[in-house]
Amino acid sequence: MDPHRALRYARAGRRKFVSELQDFLRFASVSSQPERANDVRKCATWLARHLKGVGLDRVRVIPTRGNPIVSASWLRAPGRPTLLIYGHYDVVPVEPLSEWHTPPFTPTLKNDDLHARGAADDKGQLFSHIKAVESYLKTERALPVNVKCIFEGEEEIGSPHLTSFITRNRRALRADAAVISDTRMLASDRPAISYAQRGGLRAELEVKGPSHDLHSGNFGGAVHNPLQALCEMIARLHDAHGRVAIPGFYDNVRRWGDGERAFMATTGPSDEQILQDAKIESGWGESGFSLYERTTIRPALTVNGMVGGHHGRGSKSIIPARAIAKLSFRLVPDQRPQEIAQLFRDHIERITPADVRSSVRTFSPIEPALMDRNHPAVRAAAFAYKKGFGAPPVFIRSGGSIPVVNTFQEILGVPAVLMGFGLPDDHIHGPNEKFHLPNFYKAITTSIWYLAMAAKLRGAQRTQQRSEWRES
Amino acid sequence: MDPHRALRYARAGRRKFVSELQDFLRFASVSSQPERANDVRKCATWLARHLKGVGLDRVRVIPTRGNPIVSASWLRAPGRPTLLIYGHYDVVPVEPLSEWHTPPFTPTLKNDDLHARGAADDKGQLFSHIKAVESYLKTERALPVNVKCIFEGEEEIGSPHLTSFITRNRRALRADAAVISDTRMLASDRPAISYAQRGGLRAELEVKGPSHDLHSGNFGGAVHNPLQALCEMIARLHDAHGRVAIPGFYDNVRRWGDGERAFMATTGPSDEQILQDAKIESGWGESGFSLYERTTIRPALTVNGMVGGHHGRGSKSIIPARAIAKLSFRLVPDQRPQEIAQLFRDHIERITPADVRSSVRTFSPIEPALMDRNHPAVRAAAFAYKKGFGAPPVFIRSGGSIPVVNTFQEILGVPAVLMGFGLPDDHIHGPNEKFHLPNFYKAITTSIWYLAMAAKLRGAQRTQQRSEWRES
Repeated sequence: MDPHRALRYARAGRRKFVSELQDFLRFASVSSQPERANDVRKCATWLARHLKGVGLDRVRVIPTRGNPIVSASWLRAPGRPTLLIYGHYDVVPVEPLSEWHTPPFTPTLKNDDLHARGAADDKGQLFSHIKAVESYLKTERALPVNVKCIFEGEEEIGSPHLTSFITRNRRALRADAAVISDTRMLASDRPAISYAQRGGLRAELEVKGPSHDLHSGNFGGAVHNPLQALCEMIARLHDAHGRVAIPGFYDNVRRWGDGERAFMATTGPSDEQILQDAKIESGWGESGFSLYERTTIRPALTVNGMVGGHHGRGSKSIIPARAIAKLSFRLVPDQRPQEIAQLFRDHIERITPADVRSSVRTFSPIEPALMDRNHPAVRAAAFAYKKGFGAPPVFIRSGGSIPVVNTFQEILGVPAVLMGFGLPDDHIHGPNEKFHLPNFYKAITTSIWYLAMAAKLRGAQRTQQRSEWRES
Repeated sequence: MDPHRALRYARAGRRKFVSELQDFLRFASVSSQPERANDVRKCATWLARHLKGVGLDRVRVIPTRGNPIVSASWLRAPGRPTLLIYGHYDVVPVEPLSEWHTPPFTPTLKNDDLHARGAADDKGQLFSHIKAVESYLKTERALPVNVKCIFEGEEEIGSPHLTSFITRNRRALRADAAVISDTRMLASDRPAISYAQRGGLRAELEVKGPSHDLHSGNFGGAVHNPLQALCEMIARLHDAHGRVAIPGFYDNVRRWGDGERAFMATTGPSDEQILQDAKIESGWGESGFSLYERTTIRPALTVNGMVGGHHGRGSKSIIPARAIAKLSFRLVPDQRPQEIAQLFRDHIERITPADVRSSVRTFSPIEPALMDRNHPAVRAAAFAYKKGFGAPPVFIRSGGSIPVVNTFQEILGVPAVLMGFGLPDDHIHGPNEKFHLPNFYKAITTSIWYLAMAAKLRGAQRTQQRSEWRES
């Protein structure tokens, strides 16, 4: 199927597409905040209605024990390959609100950027594929391939209900390849395909001392402070060289050969680029590894947040009764989240001072994932990128974790192609998240080409998947 | 002047007094939260009107650059001694609200306790003196001594405008003794007079890293985390033995002789008592000192609160851009707050990791204070306590800091008598603060007797003040 009519439609429809994306971004679909559950549901309903309008079939809002999954398909090309399109319509919290220059759920255009929570992660990216599908259906009344869409509402909390959904629907979800656009390019003229994802594990560490806040004048110096104890414990999670100090933590970390590391050095961002993306002056962490390596083939432990005692305005002379920290691990092959959870618990037990009590909760385990750079579905993506962005993609590893990648590979046996359309300065997960609109337009072009190229996939799939990696 | 008619009036008026105290406690006069400034002002106005109703003269609400000072006097006994009564009508914040069993500004009676923020610290205690004054004025139409009242609205933020007020009004505030009721008894049958106060200094320590929150998947392992750095820095403020690890911190700490330490061991609370008051199982801190000594003759550094990154519900994969901790020092003779501030700044500069930036703000300096246990004004208080509570007071040191004590002594040359009416389990500064009503009634009786005894003071004042301590 010639993509040119679809491409023309997409070009002409840009203004409409942006306006629709703004509607999509108005929903405060924050999955980790129970009080937003209603916004999440409304967002799912809107998305489903939109998919119907685009011309997709069998649109469903499927309830789970958490947030609903929105599914749709177009299966009117019997004998042709099937592409699974995945995205997520949930977003992370917006706090601290005061640091946003524009309201996070009032999508705002500034120059070529659309500012809103979820603009890049992941509403804008998943919407690019929907607009590509629309561009075919509104011009050709058909797609070059069969398509199955799965848009979930719990990616940002570790996709707790997706695996069981996929397992239950293994047959219905059969496909030749899956495409996931929830990652970054290196720059606006340097598209990228992620071929590796770090795994993850979240943890909450709480330390308790006295049963209620004590006056620090009356008791300061004689009672251990759970907040101080928590700081001391967190200080013992890394050594002075930036390595995680949990015994056994690195035991199963895979060592990569010189070939792979040389490839990474060629394709990946330089230290300078990463410092520039982060807008910082100097890097940190494990010596002997580039910053790119530290964020991809090396694991990490980050304190994402912490609170204890009086932290609002004013001051209060207290020894707080308790303090809590939120942490997240990023894991690499061949670390297993459950093993790391146990090592963490053991370590915390060892380093908890005698005068306080600690408790650990771990959740959202995600296995690390690796993809075959030479799979035909990946090569098709490379071709499409060249059409959309005028440049061939580089193959990079991602430091993040998209839970579904592993699920697709392990349960469906479907290779996942990670075509990212975000930019390093999109501020995803932070205040002032944005999506660069030229990338939105090029992403739609790329997706239109990818759908065309995917028509040639059948028969090539499932070869060699992961074999390349097992031996490294 | 025979106190018995006043005592009878006080006995008969209990119900009214409690109801009036409830009115006083309804004002959310939180001095450290700018949004409460209006509540603070309303509280001052109410207090002034109440003092007028009681029969005091020259009632004023005196504006300062911060919260107003409420003053009043009764100077119709020429030739008689003058007593300065000090208290504060401001309170500390109530957060975390969820831990209060009753609304903090809806004073609630439970058995013999009146629950509200400020019930014991300090509205209930200062009100005891007002009710004693009322009991005389409503029965005798006169007081046994001249009285000057100073009730401030900024004690909980270090009395930033009180010293200049007192300095400017040095003549008008001349008195023979000052009484301050803002401390604790050891138990409901063990009244106590505080003869020492720790000094204080507050600090805020902020650590900044990247200019905005970074995605911890993309950057975790390659960028230093200001929250982790802050934890590491706080961990370096104490050594493994519970001593403050700031170089030079103990250089000027006075060493007390065996005599004073033996006196303290006899009069002060035991380790068991302090553990019971704090409702904890084991103590912490400097070895070689009892828990009572650790909280009185030894300095302390407490982390009162800390916040960084995402700490609300849900989770967020970020390396936060910054983190902040609120700390407070408790200082002892002969430490000087300004010297400690400099030592702290120097230490923070030394221990700030290269990859982050730190800033320190210090404020609310309070000098440590010592009072002469043998001053006639103190002996008069001891007599009054015996009348009010049926037991002679013990002489104890307080771990807290009341800024005005030093100001009275140094600027006015007036000995300050610290007659506490609070109980160790009053939860001051914490959720569910309360005032034990039998203590309220006995405090009024005690104050009535103290006013009677103070009539005999003149001529004895200003002898030996602090000389006992200079030599130790």
